[in-house]
Amino acid sequence: MDMNTRDTTVTELNVLADFAPKLPESYQNSDFLILGNLTPQVQLDVIKQMKKRPKLIVMDTMNFWMEVALDDLKKVLKEVDVLMINDSEARQLSGEFSLVKAARKVLSMGPRYLIIKKGEHGALLFHENHVFFAPALPLEDVFDPTGAGDTFAGGFIGHLAKTRDISFENMKTAIIVASAMASFCVEKFGVQRLREITQEDIASRIEQFVQLVNFDIDLV
Amino acid sequence: MDMNTRDTTVTELNVLADFAPKLPESYQNSDFLILGNLTPQVQLDVIKQMKKRPKLIVMDTMNFWMEVALDDLKKVLKEVDVLMINDSEARQLSGEFSLVKAARKVLSMGPRYLIIKKGEHGALLFHENHVFFAPALPLEDVFDPTGAGDTFAGGFIGHLAKTRDISFENMKTAIIVASAMASFCVEKFGVQRLREITQEDIASRIEQFVQLVNFDIDLV
Repeated sequence: MDMNTRDTTVTELNVLADFAPKLPESYQNSDFLILGNLTPQVQLDVIKQMKKRPKLIVMDTMNFWMEVALDDLKKVLKEVDVLMINDSEARQLSGEFSLVKAARKVLSMGPRYLIIKKGEHGALLFHENHVFFAPALPLEDVFDPTGAGDTFAGGFIGHLAKTRDISFENMKTAIIVASAMASFCVEKFGVQRLREITQEDIASRIEQFVQLVNFDIDLV
Repeated sequence: MDMNTRDTTVTELNVLADFAPKLPESYQNSDFLILGNLTPQVQLDVIKQMKKRPKLIVMDTMNFWMEVALDDLKKVLKEVDVLMINDSEARQLSGEFSLVKAARKVLSMGPRYLIIKKGEHGALLFHENHVFFAPALPLEDVFDPTGAGDTFAGGFIGHLAKTRDISFENMKTAIIVASAMASFCVEKFGVQRLREITQEDIASRIEQFVQLVNFDIDLV
């Protein structure tokens, strides 16, 4: 089932509602938790299974849950540190068109950090009164966008877990890493490209992001 | 007449065709020339009136001229250094959906630099195999977008003319200045906001752009 399609049926929802993952013992002490885009109830249940509160909880969700399980969704929002949604979902959740206003409202619902993904137009990270923008790399071709969002999420928390630094400054870097990983994902079908790339490919792609936004601020 | 509306009539076109601006003597030695969005014929005629070739010629145009005066438009393109269009115009002019491919085609038509404006999603600067991206500032409200494109153009060439440096590096800075100026323009009606702001306001707004895209690249 593709969670990104909007025509999820009630039957599928019931199947999901019956899905009650049991965290293996070895996972219950993890410092970093990412909640994939599933029913808010499942997400909350996973948080409860953690023996101690992780250092960072990141949550993905979508418009569908806003429509059918908003109350549960709001409960999970109070328990997470970072929410990751796209621009239309941020607008739907907040009722605000301006992403700046939308971010302020969403941050008042619980998460201390909000990432708004804008696809080919990049991503925004909001925290208190700060905002950071990471562009998407302009690409020759997008072969298959499937999985780009999950790759972005994995790249983001992967960098934070590897560096064990959850500061706002390091989250900026994590979003650049996330964008770089997502830019590989769309180059081939499924996970094919991600299985091919090396650390060198990743470093070189990140350097492209640096070049893309780097400018000299010494104004005459 | 608003050149940004797409329903320009044939009558209006004829009026424009009769418009033959005569450059004042004192303008004919200018180092910097910007051709506003008018008939390609008028643009070409202005270039011919220059006594010596300006150091930099920047050109604005739109989809309308691509539809009714493409041959003339292509002639002007061969005479200019920088073309400034929006994303849909870049796609229309090149016949390519990918902006990277579109840029390559447009750069082969004459201009050495191409700026693709994406409105609230920022702007891209292409030159040879280089690309630079300037974000738009996420705003609380957009009061009136009228004139944002012209303000952007003015901010861009204004910075280049002031610094007298037409390198790619300085064009990056010019696009940030341009974006900052455009972000003021939309805050009030018409040119009202632009008449109020001080150099300090501009410097402080540019600093916001720096903060917006600045990140640490030291990956562990």
